[in-house]
Amino acid sequence: MEFRDFSDLSAVDQLQQLAASPCDLTAPNLLSPERFAGYRMSCCDFDFLYASQRIDDNVLAVLQELADEAQLVEKICSMKRGEVINRIEGFASEERQVLHTACRDIFRNQPDNQEATAQAKQQLELLQSFLQELENGRIVNHKGEPFTTMVQVGIGGSDLGPRAIFHALSAYARPNKTARFIANVDPDDAAAVLADLDLSRTLVNVVSKSGTTLETLTNELLVREAYAKDGLDPARHIIAVTGESSPMDDPERYLASFYMYDYIGGRYSATSMVGAVTLAFVLGIDQVFDILAGAHAMDMAAEETNIRKNMPLLMALIGIWNHNFLGLPTVAVLPYSQALSRFPAHLQQCDMESNGKSVTRQGGIVRWQTGPVVWGEPGTNGQHAFYQLLHQGTEVVPAEFIGFRNSQYRRDLKIKGSTSQQKLVANMLAQSLALALGSSSDNPNKYFPGNRPSSILLADQLTPYNMGSLLALYENRIAFQGFAWNINSFDQEGVQLGKVLATRLLAEIIGERGEQDVLDDDSPEINLLLQAGISVKK
Amino acid sequence: MEFRDFSDLSAVDQLQQLAASPCDLTAPNLLSPERFAGYRMSCCDFDFLYASQRIDDNVLAVLQELADEAQLVEKICSMKRGEVINRIEGFASEERQVLHTACRDIFRNQPDNQEATAQAKQQLELLQSFLQELENGRIVNHKGEPFTTMVQVGIGGSDLGPRAIFHALSAYARPNKTARFIANVDPDDAAAVLADLDLSRTLVNVVSKSGTTLETLTNELLVREAYAKDGLDPARHIIAVTGESSPMDDPERYLASFYMYDYIGGRYSATSMVGAVTLAFVLGIDQVFDILAGAHAMDMAAEETNIRKNMPLLMALIGIWNHNFLGLPTVAVLPYSQALSRFPAHLQQCDMESNGKSVTRQGGIVRWQTGPVVWGEPGTNGQHAFYQLLHQGTEVVPAEFIGFRNSQYRRDLKIKGSTSQQKLVANMLAQSLALALGSSSDNPNKYFPGNRPSSILLADQLTPYNMGSLLALYENRIAFQGFAWNINSFDQEGVQLGKVLATRLLAEIIGERGEQDVLDDDSPEINLLLQAGISVKK
Repeated sequence: MEFRDFSDLSAVDQLQQLAASPCDLTAPNLLSPERFAGYRMSCCDFDFLYASQRIDDNVLAVLQELADEAQLVEKICSMKRGEVINRIEGFASEERQVLHTACRDIFRNQPDNQEATAQAKQQLELLQSFLQELENGRIVNHKGEPFTTMVQVGIGGSDLGPRAIFHALSAYARPNKTARFIANVDPDDAAAVLADLDLSRTLVNVVSKSGTTLETLTNELLVREAYAKDGLDPARHIIAVTGESSPMDDPERYLASFYMYDYIGGRYSATSMVGAVTLAFVLGIDQVFDILAGAHAMDMAAEETNIRKNMPLLMALIGIWNHNFLGLPTVAVLPYSQALSRFPAHLQQCDMESNGKSVTRQGGIVRWQTGPVVWGEPGTNGQHAFYQLLHQGTEVVPAEFIGFRNSQYRRDLKIKGSTSQQKLVANMLAQSLALALGSSSDNPNKYFPGNRPSSILLADQLTPYNMGSLLALYENRIAFQGFAWNINSFDQEGVQLGKVLATRLLAEIIGERGEQDVLDDDSPEINLLLQAGISVKK
Repeated sequence: MEFRDFSDLSAVDQLQQLAASPCDLTAPNLLSPERFAGYRMSCCDFDFLYASQRIDDNVLAVLQELADEAQLVEKICSMKRGEVINRIEGFASEERQVLHTACRDIFRNQPDNQEATAQAKQQLELLQSFLQELENGRIVNHKGEPFTTMVQVGIGGSDLGPRAIFHALSAYARPNKTARFIANVDPDDAAAVLADLDLSRTLVNVVSKSGTTLETLTNELLVREAYAKDGLDPARHIIAVTGESSPMDDPERYLASFYMYDYIGGRYSATSMVGAVTLAFVLGIDQVFDILAGAHAMDMAAEETNIRKNMPLLMALIGIWNHNFLGLPTVAVLPYSQALSRFPAHLQQCDMESNGKSVTRQGGIVRWQTGPVVWGEPGTNGQHAFYQLLHQGTEVVPAEFIGFRNSQYRRDLKIKGSTSQQKLVANMLAQSLALALGSSSDNPNKYFPGNRPSSILLADQLTPYNMGSLLALYENRIAFQGFAWNINSFDQEGVQLGKVLATRLLAEIIGERGEQDVLDDDSPEINLLLQAGISVKK
């Protein structure tokens, strides 16, 4: 297996040439029935419709070459087996395996990585036992009542994925079970959540792999203080998900403890105990197994070498076409599903923290664009918000629509001959067409240029299984893009500088350092800020 | 008053030249105490810190020229007086005044536009009477109980602004008063909200200026059906905010009705009855007057011609510098305040629907970039998500930080010598510095290029007054940018094509049209989609 620079791939030259005259979606008859039928694939329960991308068979053929040349499938298979790919050759780096896929590779006798899957199974068994004890009344509050709410305290990967999935699947919540989330170091985040909670019926799930995350430890203490104020014993309410032997790995302080492992990055950890504990509390363990099964099915599908039969790989390559060759700096993820309202925020982390990089796997500076800006809000809401720019703005934004043929609650009404769900899906399809086709007009203000690329993911319903597939679809897509760009998608050195400066600045704000130290040479920038009179002491 | 093309302004040529070598924020001693002190202004309760933008006195001088040449302040004053500026010369267009500022110009004897302000005052008086009737028990439910929840049903401008402000200020909610929101035509949106509501204690506030918004009418019917199922009379629970003589202007169907006027665009309507009714129900009318007072103060400040004393104007011009001259396609709004978590979504509409345009006020095609992609999530959460890309990605994203010296709930804890609020603000300041300064390293993966522009808005606390100022700050900024780009920021023709195609597609999905019609020439694209087998009938 060889890691080559993106710009050294011969397919990249060819794609640059093809990008000089990309296919014109507004051309008469281009969007033919044959094109719609041909530029479509199915995987797990999802259809992927990509006829409204600015690609043709030539582009697809060279994208296949790119995939082959860069050995993208080989690399993802190697990742799943446990190769140490979280590294930069020749420089100090994390030097870790990347094995989030092992968490869901629990359905086969011969998983790709025996050891990691065995650990995942062990944790799932612990979780099942814990849930049984909650079920059968062996773990209850001081009054003997069952718990109704789980508050997950975590940030970044310990928050965004689990929170997005909870919102996506809360239609399936068991009676009298719900979840809340506290992430921000902003004390108002915890205060607002705690303001309307019955702490006596609440479990708090503190999640931090390192056991040292500033925000999470701070919020844990705020929560412990709230319990103490109510005369309740925190040790009967607080559980932990953390790395083995982290400072939080201290079962005496917690009602229960679950492990996560350093071969799983935070932003890929939703299918580990980081997501499983809260989701199983709310949804039940069977639904968690369904999520894992959906994710595993997509992981398996990512091993197909034909790009037109490998959904995450094809999405990755189309994304590269739009970003590196058509020069589009952002991508909008637009779920036509209110339940997926927080999924774009999860993808922002998963994608931008993975691929917002400038250094190759060999430590060179990249000479090509890496990860785009990812953003989005649910439709149809977005249609009444930012779609004006998508249709007529000077920034061209490739769109990824996600929709479902059926609703979750199935509480719908036929109004003017159609259900709300039909209106929802019709709007999604119409937007994709409108962006591609455009429209002419004698009134320049009613002119739509068209040729704005989009694709559609369509499934029957947002179920736990499909949520798992959707999550893994994007995880695999992101990994494929990182391999193509020859970057390490699994570290996050870019967050360090802000942390260091924040710590220094905090020390000055709270006056721990004397006058001498304030003028110390190693923090001149902060002295400047302070000298300029920006004080937070007020 | 003259509307000139952006590219015809002589300042634009000069700025292009200056942009060839923008100031280097990583240069030793550039970020000096003098720079921090000088590149800072105060307005209402906000400090605006812009030392970490890639500008210098030369750039600022030419930005002042641009403001003068394009008569930006003159134009906003003329807008506030009631000139018909929502128009495209020589073509059919909305031909309306733009008078959202009149809603808050209620504190002076001589408002800029007497008529609109008189109408705003009249509606506020109606609202006060309605609230008094709720207070003194004259309007109650069928059991004689007071109402505790208001559900706002609206979408786009009838949802995003009011929702963002509700989240921002819910710390100030009166006891036993809260709000929920239904926007999406996705039936699961209404179902999820209705699932855990006591309808008998709930008022529903249906908001649509036209009285014809598909999503809103559909959701109103879903809600009415839910009341009927519970044996409750909807007419005792549902109120309306709509345009005079719209199809919804029918007081017999509603418990109460309030008016909005067509001189107020949806995305600028948060300070009209569109936002005031729900916010006054939850917060009380005095807090709504505080919001209006804060917004009005910022509106007045926008009349200053010196750009260094006019916060919205200066922000607008710095945005133009970053977007048009430094070539940065997006802008991230990053509130260090969990309460502002939905404010970026509101700004997406307000900004991108206003300035995502390609046609000048005279109907020409723009030859310059107009509005950027606006996105963002709260810090510190974002630090654990997408900040990796902000610091080390290949896309450079200008950042707008928003922070407060004090929390809202004031339930904070000193941990390791500092409060959570101090940690929060220290992180925000540190991020701005880190983005600007960068950092060198022998390890290429730990290298930060710096020179990534940002600015900071800092106030004492997120109060109703400050929320009003912040809202108006961005509204005015957006209007200034639209005037500079010589576009009409007040229409939204770009949303029409999608609506038309959705209506056609829906007709085919529900089979209202015969086989003949399905193959009708005027909707070939939809036939294609259908022939390709994309069915939502399953």
